[in-house]
Order: sequence, then structure tokens, then C-alpha cells
Amino acid sequence: MPPAVSRPRIVIVGGGFAGLYAARALSRAPVDVTLIDRRNFHLFQPLLYQVATGGLSPGQIASPLRAVLARQKNVTVLLGEMVDLDADRRRVVLADGEVPYDTLVLAPGATHHYFGRDDWAPHAPGLKTIEDATGIRRRLFLAFEAAEREPDEARRRAWLTFAVVGAGATGVELAGALAEISRETLRHDFRRIDPREASILLVEAADRVLPPNPPELSAKAGAALAGLGVRILTGTRVTALDAGGLTLERGGAEERIAARTVMWAAGVRASPLGAVLRDRAGAELDRAGRVLVGPDLALPGRPEIHVLGDLAHCPDENGQPLPGIAPVAMQQGRWVAAKIRAGVEGRKPDSTFRYRDKGTMAVIGRGSAVAVLGPLRFAGYPAWLAWLFVHLMYLVEFENRLLVLLQWAWNYFTWNRGARLITGPSPFPLARGGGGEPPEP
Amino acid sequence: MPPAVSRPRIVIVGGGFAGLYAARALSRAPVDVTLIDRRNFHLFQPLLYQVATGGLSPGQIASPLRAVLARQKNVTVLLGEMVDLDADRRRVVLADGEVPYDTLVLAPGATHHYFGRDDWAPHAPGLKTIEDATGIRRRLFLAFEAAEREPDEARRRAWLTFAVVGAGATGVELAGALAEISRETLRHDFRRIDPREASILLVEAADRVLPPNPPELSAKAGAALAGLGVRILTGTRVTALDAGGLTLERGGAEERIAARTVMWAAGVRASPLGAVLRDRAGAELDRAGRVLVGPDLALPGRPEIHVLGDLAHCPDENGQPLPGIAPVAMQQGRWVAAKIRAGVEGRKPDSTFRYRDKGTMAVIGRGSAVAVLGPLRFAGYPAWLAWLFVHLMYLVEFENRLLVLLQWAWNYFTWNRGARLITGPSPFPLARGGGGEPPEP
Repeated sequence: MPPAVSRPRIVIVGGGFAGLYAARALSRAPVDVTLIDRRNFHLFQPLLYQVATGGLSPGQIASPLRAVLARQKNVTVLLGEMVDLDADRRRVVLADGEVPYDTLVLAPGATHHYFGRDDWAPHAPGLKTIEDATGIRRRLFLAFEAAEREPDEARRRAWLTFAVVGAGATGVELAGALAEISRETLRHDFRRIDPREASILLVEAADRVLPPNPPELSAKAGAALAGLGVRILTGTRVTALDAGGLTLERGGAEERIAARTVMWAAGVRASPLGAVLRDRAGAELDRAGRVLVGPDLALPGRPEIHVLGDLAHCPDENGQPLPGIAPVAMQQGRWVAAKIRAGVEGRKPDSTFRYRDKGTMAVIGRGSAVAVLGPLRFAGYPAWLAWLFVHLMYLVEFENRLLVLLQWAWNYFTWNRGARLITGPSPFPLARGGGGEPPEP
Repeated sequence: MPPAVSRPRIVIVGGGFAGLYAARALSRAPVDVTLIDRRNFHLFQPLLYQVATGGLSPGQIASPLRAVLARQKNVTVLLGEMVDLDADRRRVVLADGEVPYDTLVLAPGATHHYFGRDDWAPHAPGLKTIEDATGIRRRLFLAFEAAEREPDEARRRAWLTFAVVGAGATGVELAGALAEISRETLRHDFRRIDPREASILLVEAADRVLPPNPPELSAKAGAALAGLGVRILTGTRVTALDAGGLTLERGGAEERIAARTVMWAAGVRASPLGAVLRDRAGAELDRAGRVLVGPDLALPGRPEIHVLGDLAHCPDENGQPLPGIAPVAMQQGRWVAAKIRAGVEGRKPDSTFRYRDKGTMAVIGRGSAVAVLGPLRFAGYPAWLAWLFVHLMYLVEFENRLLVLLQWAWNYFTWNRGARLITGPSPFPLARGGGGEPPEP
């Protein structure tokens, strides 16, 4: 048998939901797949807020890409960072080398978006990576420690005020988890402060939480959060943000809130590789930096280059771009794999990707969630069980599914958050606190 | 009832085995305990090598101190760093404040010791903290990634050569885990390299591995390691160490070994607080920086200051200092608590701490360990089960015991090390590799 040099070379950039599902769906195809990622693991991002709030450990929501793909012999995993593209010679340019392709699948994901205020980033970290999550965990739990040590009432109050900017799924989940931490998990842990006195603010520019969902769902989520003691500020914009707190504008009136811990869940920006595609392959970008793709997820005029997941601006039936969520990415990954396979096998591929919306969910807290599943809309305990089931089923490795379920069961019955470790550089003297920002003047 | 101002104030510095067990043993005593630690968690150090080798996550071997002590109302936990001592005014000086005491229990632990070659530290990290463990994990798994990307044979060999300096329990455990990783866990993960070709060196200056144990045990451990493919170099000293490798001297002959990953398990140095005790309270230190204590674990002439654990030079019946291991620290913690309680309750305390040696164990790998338990000496599977049982029983929180056991069972049957995440700063370009050291010239 001749060596497999003549097999089509499929290069996938990004081992998130889109890229990993594309690679897996190519398992039986007569192609050579190279999966390139900057990290050596697939991250189950929907549970990242659990790491940020001490409920799970990073290893419980991440699976080594090589382990997931070890038995799939037509895949080579490459730890590498794509920095450029040579579209005419069909080569992905890495920081340290080049990788030739016949077909390219780009799914590098997204990063935080501060809407032109990148100076806010050090004071209001977003939640996209393991390092983001352990950094937020550090800030959260150091804030309670600093409050315990702080004799001044006003300063203590600032340490015990937590603001989450953005009330999409991540913001709602963070705010709900924070409420549980302060009301239950830490209840008996301190001697000078009462963690239950912590203020948790959820700031949202739209007129309701979970804005893309049906209004009745937003109402249920809002009521559940309010029941946990979260102060919901809708129709509210952030106009200033620094180490000492934030300024909110609502109906023309401004309010300054002293808060030492602010988390950013307000927006994402597409990967900078979008600009590379624009410059090197003539791609068109939308205002959020996403790449406009055709109905077959390929670049217009470049049928060998596909863009998937958070980087893709892929319209739904109403012309609205599909949201940057895991189900969209998974379906796109599988669809592109089927298209590639059909082409290789000489069949006529499907020409149009269609997203099948199976529903949306957000978890509020222990035994509390909201869900839209087809025609069903439900909240509370049944929604929470549905949320738990769906998320556990999608965790890639069997190991994670089982042990995360057990961890969850344990946490549920005990209000435990045993992974609330403060790691990283020395925080002393403690008043410097959270994230290495300068002390309050 | 008057406020409890007249209750004796017991200040414990350090939440390791000695400090935490002392605090817990004081639960029913009519005293006010303040436990000060720089970290917000108790770390189960005997399993730290499992984090360094991707078998367990940090959250699985660490328990928040506040959670462990939440229900013990006579304990206040303080996140703080002791920087000085005012022995005459009986105050512990923190980076940001002072804490008065009537009785002081100092158990701050130990750090790495490079025997005057601190310049080796960046190239050969030790294993004492969570950050050490995730840093070593990063180096280990990045080395395999760099080898996969390296076209040059000699450089690839250097990436696939791992040296562990020091064959005490930690060194033996690291070398054994490394052998399993390369022979089994990563077996199917790469396409260009065969991880089974990795060289694992265990370097020891004494004439056998596990030197403080009976020779027959060392022999069994050595045979088990050799069976896993570890190259054991006893009677061997390190004379040079840099980013590219190390120079070994054995019987007068020197050998240079190109190894990009070196781990240091050769020695510990007592906490710098020993010097504070010498300068502020007239303590005498041994050559390793440990504080000479009396038979009651107190400083001679300062009966209110106790030193426990790795910082204490506490002689056994033969005049040899007790080793810096968890059982010694736990027994000292409990003994000091009993002494304090007797004093407070007006009883005559026991005047002499005696260590009850219940045995020593070291694990080699999957189903393989060596153990001395009283008159029994055994190896192989029974020793491994004994090791597993003892270690799980000592994990402080019930949660950890159960889930770590399950994780272990899973890892055992699947050779899994699902926590092998490469986290931290960007490693690109990859040839820079391991730990941010400069590239090989």
C-alpha cells in the first residue's frame, strides 16, 4: 500500500466544541486531520463559572485533546498558535512553523469585549479560560478574607459588594452562584463578618435578564435571582469602572457603587484571526469582528476555508446571526465534517447549514434553572434537572461525567464548594487584595 | 456571662498537619484559638506528586481551612503572613498587623533546599505548593509536546529525558509516576514520537533509594522502579545544572546529560521563621535551619513558644532529629494541644513528647508500593493497598476521601491522567518550552 500522502489534508484550528466535534465526526473519513490548538485540552466552557466559584476543579471540566482523540488514528493533534494564513499557498502559519492544508476549518472562538474600554479589563475580568476562572476565584474569596480583616465599615462594605456586568447566561449563573456562596457556603466560616450581608449586583443594559430569551423566561429567572438576594439593575449601563468600584447610569441618573470585585460577562469579541482572514483571504467582517460565511460555512470565493463557532457570522432563518453557544458550534462542526466527507467520497454535499434549536437553558442556583426546550418553557427544579442532565451528557470523557455528577451531588447536599482555593502570587499585604490592582486611595 | 476576654489566647501559625491537628485537638478546650496561614487551605502534601503528574486536581487534595474549622467556634482563621515576632510583648507580627498571644504554636513548614545553589531553582523546581505542582505539570507535558514538534534527534532526546534529583519518598513517587505516564498514559497520544522511549533518571547521592529505610525495602523499591524502566543512579551527585541538562559525578567520573526537564526532590530547608525565632527569642538552630526544642516542644526558657513539624529539630530516642513527615507533625500537633489543655484546666501536663512510629510507606506506581509497618515489611500490591487506605483516611474532608478514591479507581483501570492540563502563560514559540527558561543555544 502506498503511503497516505494522497489523502486530503484537513486542518482544524481550535479544539473547542466546533473544532473537536468536526474532528470526531471525521473519524471514519479517508482524510488526514490535523487539529491545532494553543491549549492541550478541550474546555467545557458552560461549566467554567463553577470553577470561578469554587464548585469544581479545572481538571473536572477539561479533557486533554490527545486523550479524547488518542484512538482516532487519522487525527494528529498539534499544540500550536496560528498567527497568520497563506491562503494562496494554502498554509496555516504558526508561531513556529507552517502547516499545509487542502481544506481548512477555522474555529478559534472568542474573547472578551469591553466595547472600546480595554482599560476596564484589569478591574473587571471576563470568564473565557481556566486562568480567567482561577483568577476570578482568587478575587472572590480574597474579597471575603479582606472584609474579615477590614476594621473600617465603608471599606468592608466595598469588599462585600460584588458586581456582575451583563445578564446573559454567564452573568446570571455567576450572580446566582455568588448568592449561594455568601448565603450558604460561607455562612459559618467567618467570625467578624456575616457573609450573608454581601451585596450582589447584576447589571444589564437591556430591560431584562437573559435578553435573547422569551420575556416570561426572563421574568422567571429574575424572580429566582431576586429570591436569592441578587439586586438586578436592568436598563443600566456602566459609565466608569476602576479598582474601587463602578459608576452606573440608569434613566439619565448616575450612581457610584463602591465594589472591590467586578466581573465582566457583558460581551465577546471574535478571535483576532478574523482580521487575518480579512487581510489574507478577503473575508468580510461584521461589527463584532465575526467573519461573514456563506450558507455552507465557507468563505465566499474560498470554498476550502470554513469558519465555525464564535468566529462565524452565520445567519439564521430570520437573517439574525446565530448566537455563540455550544450547540451551534457542535452542529456546525458535525455539518462541516459531513460536507468534507461527502466531497472526499465523491457524493454531492449538503449545501446549506441549518441550526436546529433544541432549546436554551440557564441555571440560577441549587435546584433552580430556566429552560426553553422546543415548545416547552419551564423553570425551577425540573429545569435544573434538565440542565444538569444535558450538561453532564455533553462532557466529553466518561470519567468527567461520572465524577462531576458525584461532585455535584455532594455539593448539592452540603452546599459545599471545596475547590475554593486562593492560588497564585502572594496576596500580602491583604488590603491590596483581589487582582493585584493598586490599593484604594 | 462576662465576655471571654480572660480565656487564654492560643495563636497557631501554619495550617499544615501540625497546626491544623493542634487546632482541632483544642476544640473542647476553654481557649480562644487563632489559626494564621498564608493560604486559605490545608494542603495534603503527600499527594502533591499526583497533581504534578496530572492524576488529581488541586481541589482534590486541598481543603479550605475555614470549611474544616467552620463549626469549631473557638477557632478564628486568619489569612495572614507572619513576618516577625515580638517575644517579650507576646505578639505575632503580620505583614499588616499584630496578633497577641498567651501561648504560641509555630508550625510554618519547610521549603526547598538547593544546598547553596539557589541558581539551580529555576531549572529544577521543587514540589511544596499547589503552584509548584501545576508548574511541574506544565513542564512535564510541554516537554512531550515539544518533542513531538522537534525534528532534530538530539534535541528531541533532551526533551524526552526527565531527571528527578533525590530518591526520598517524593523523588521515588515522581519517578514512578513519570514512568507510568510515558509507558502507559501517553502511549497512544502522539504520532511522531513514542512516549515509551522517554528516559527517566532518578539521581541519589546515597547508595540506595529511600535511604532512611531498611536496606531490604530500598532494594524492593529499586527493583520495582527498574521494572518500570527508571534508570537509578545512586552514589551520584549533581555538580552542574542549567536549562539544557545536568552534570553528574559518580565515583570521580563526570557525565553530562541533556535533559530539558529536571525536578528537585533532594532537600528541604526549614522556614525562614526559624531565623526570626533565633533573633527575637534566642532560639538555637541546627545546620538545616531547624529550631532546637525541648522535650515538651517548647523553646528552652520560653515555655509559651512551641515549635512543631518541619521547623522543629526534635530528637528521637537515639538523638536523631525526627523526619519532616506528616505523622510526626500530626502527633506533635495533638500532643501540644493536650499539653495546652492540661495547663488551662489546671492539670499537670505530660512533659515529654514521644513519637510513635507507625510505619513508613512509599508508592512506586499502579499497584506497587513499599511499606514498613511496625515489624512488618512488605511490598507490591498489599503495600499499595495499605498506602491507598492510609492516605485516603487522612484526607481531611469526607468529600475528598470519597471522590479521590473514585478518581483513583478510575485512573487505575484506565491509566487515565485526565488532569494533565498545561496552564499558565502562553508557551509559544514552543521550543522555549518548559518553564520560561531561555532556549537552548
